Amino acid sequence: MEHSYSSIRRSQKQLGFRIGYPAKLKRFGQTITQNAITTTAIATLAAQEFGLEENPSSIDVNHADLARVREALKHFVRDWSEEGAGEREKIFQPILRVLEQIPLSAREEARVLVPGSGLGRLAWEISQLGYNTRAVEYSYFMTLAMRFLFSPTSTPNTNSHNIQPFAHWFSHQRSNDSLFRSIPFPDVVPRFSSKLELIEDDFLKTATPYPSKDQAGQSGYDFVVTLFFIDTSINVFSTIEKIYSLLRPGGTWINLGPLLWPGGAQAKVELSLEEVMLAVKDIGFVIDQGGSADDSRRPRTIECEYAHDQNAMMHWVYHAKFWVATK
Amino acid sequence: MEHSYSSIRRSQKQLGFRIGYPAKLKRFGQTITQNAITTTAIATLAAQEFGLEENPSSIDVNHADLARVREALKHFVRDWSEEGAGEREKIFQPILRVLEQIPLSAREEARVLVPGSGLGRLAWEISQLGYNTRAVEYSYFMTLAMRFLFSPTSTPNTNSHNIQPFAHWFSHQRSNDSLFRSIPFPDVVPRFSSKLELIEDDFLKTATPYPSKDQAGQSGYDFVVTLFFIDTSINVFSTIEKIYSLLRPGGTWINLGPLLWPGGAQAKVELSLEEVMLAVKDIGFVIDQGGSADDSRRPRTIECEYAHDQNAMMHWVYHAKFWVATK
Repeated sequence: MEHSYSSIRRSQKQLGFRIGYPAKLKRFGQTITQNAITTTAIATLAAQEFGLEENPSSIDVNHADLARVREALKHFVRDWSEEGAGEREKIFQPILRVLEQIPLSAREEARVLVPGSGLGRLAWEISQLGYNTRAVEYSYFMTLAMRFLFSPTSTPNTNSHNIQPFAHWFSHQRSNDSLFRSIPFPDVVPRFSSKLELIEDDFLKTATPYPSKDQAGQSGYDFVVTLFFIDTSINVFSTIEKIYSLLRPGGTWINLGPLLWPGGAQAKVELSLEEVMLAVKDIGFVIDQGGSADDSRRPRTIECEYAHDQNAMMHWVYHAKFWVATK
Repeated sequence: MEHSYSSIRRSQKQLGFRIGYPAKLKRFGQTITQNAITTTAIATLAAQEFGLEENPSSIDVNHADLARVREALKHFVRDWSEEGAGEREKIFQPILRVLEQIPLSAREEARVLVPGSGLGRLAWEISQLGYNTRAVEYSYFMTLAMRFLFSPTSTPNTNSHNIQPFAHWFSHQRSNDSLFRSIPFPDVVPRFSSKLELIEDDFLKTATPYPSKDQAGQSGYDFVVTLFFIDTSINVFSTIEKIYSLLRPGGTWINLGPLLWPGGAQAKVELSLEEVMLAVKDIGFVIDQGGSADDSRRPRTIECEYAHDQNAMMHWVYHAKFWVATK
């Protein structure tokens, strides 16, 4: 950016100076330093856990890696900041309302799997309801950041950390104060527990759990919860089949998300919603049609955003689909 | 897509067959043929006008070219179809309301410049109000498609053409019927006239017009209208300075659009809205603050979309900024 700016003509540099543009570029440099405090701490913790001696800053990174680090920073906002509360309310509540209807006593034995759990807020919320919860996440960009957040050493209390997650894209900004604003996190302090476990693996390789006491020998999860997940599949048929196979007979699949298939012809199939629903039924699920308009299990469209900047002049609004299905 | 699909395992191919996926891929092939009727006609007209003998289908194209052709197809919807009426209403009306307030007699002599005019609907609407209108467009992907539309030979009447502009992206679709739907165009038949001229050039090279009769020797346009334009600038300082220099003293700039700066560090400056407004004032404009809440000239935010698929499960919503400024 400094290089691009340096090539404008002199009279325009004077104009740029009068509106404070060089100061903005300087502030951007400070942002990078500020965000590096968090990213370096994550990398250092990861190096310790993996027993690496190498200095994290000496590792080669490419542009795609950088994009993923920025994505992870935005997930801190979405999952673990006050500012993300509104976004979470829209996408977590439809799921949590279904789980809240199960009697507390039944939750003790019930097992919930959350594939593509990212930084783990939804899985943590589910564990707080009393469910035995397993989060599955394959990407190190997410799991390392999550470990950093769940570690008593790295994250001793609320708002231990500060990031400026929106500073990396100057488009669609109303003001520089908004562009460079700091977001403290976490708003609550999460920890792993006997109720919450992280599995760092490919969801398609996840094992079926052994039968629990009250399941009369039935193996499988009671609930699989997929949030913004199924459309990340290279082969969504495999994903739906795997969800089916992981559930116990009578088990429940709760889904909320859009249909943004992996690009560049990576996806084996790219289905319309109509085709997804046909495949879901063909594989053996029964979609719960719900009853009254306030039935928490009825299929519906949820207008929501994803790891967005609420102050920005551009909003990606998903008309995501929510459904509850039974094996 | 067929290649990706062919690699799934046999039982999944049977599932795919049951939900009609191979038929969808076949329908996609037919879409390409259908859309080629329009694109080939555009290329043939262009070859005639440029006196080329070459068969347009023999020209090498790359992926970026393809993306621009698809963009042009979507612009037919946005600018010239019934389906685009809602989107046009939101972004054209704020501009047209300001121009409608000028007495009819004064419009006869008034001159309006529309940079980045695309397929020309806004410029045409302005010319229909009685203004001498010049549309400026640099991209051949737009100007060739516009000439095709404005030609009595290529486009004899309303709904002469049909395209399936949304078929090229399978994500965010509710149904295949929606994905493959045909959009007829144009909803009205536009023609060039003494009131509407197209300048195929870089806006930054546009000449200032000679003085008109009632301007007492003042040269320059009475209005410059920029819609989704200023943020396409490599150097927005140059763009705003050029708008200023093209207007006659007392002339009016009407702007509506977001701030999505060219990526990949192409843009020399990437301003926040706050900085844009500082630059606009520094260059010499006075922003009209308007009076009452229904004053058509008051600065405001317009929620709008851009060449979007109204049926899709994803919407890019711009909180675009509208203002009227005087030189």
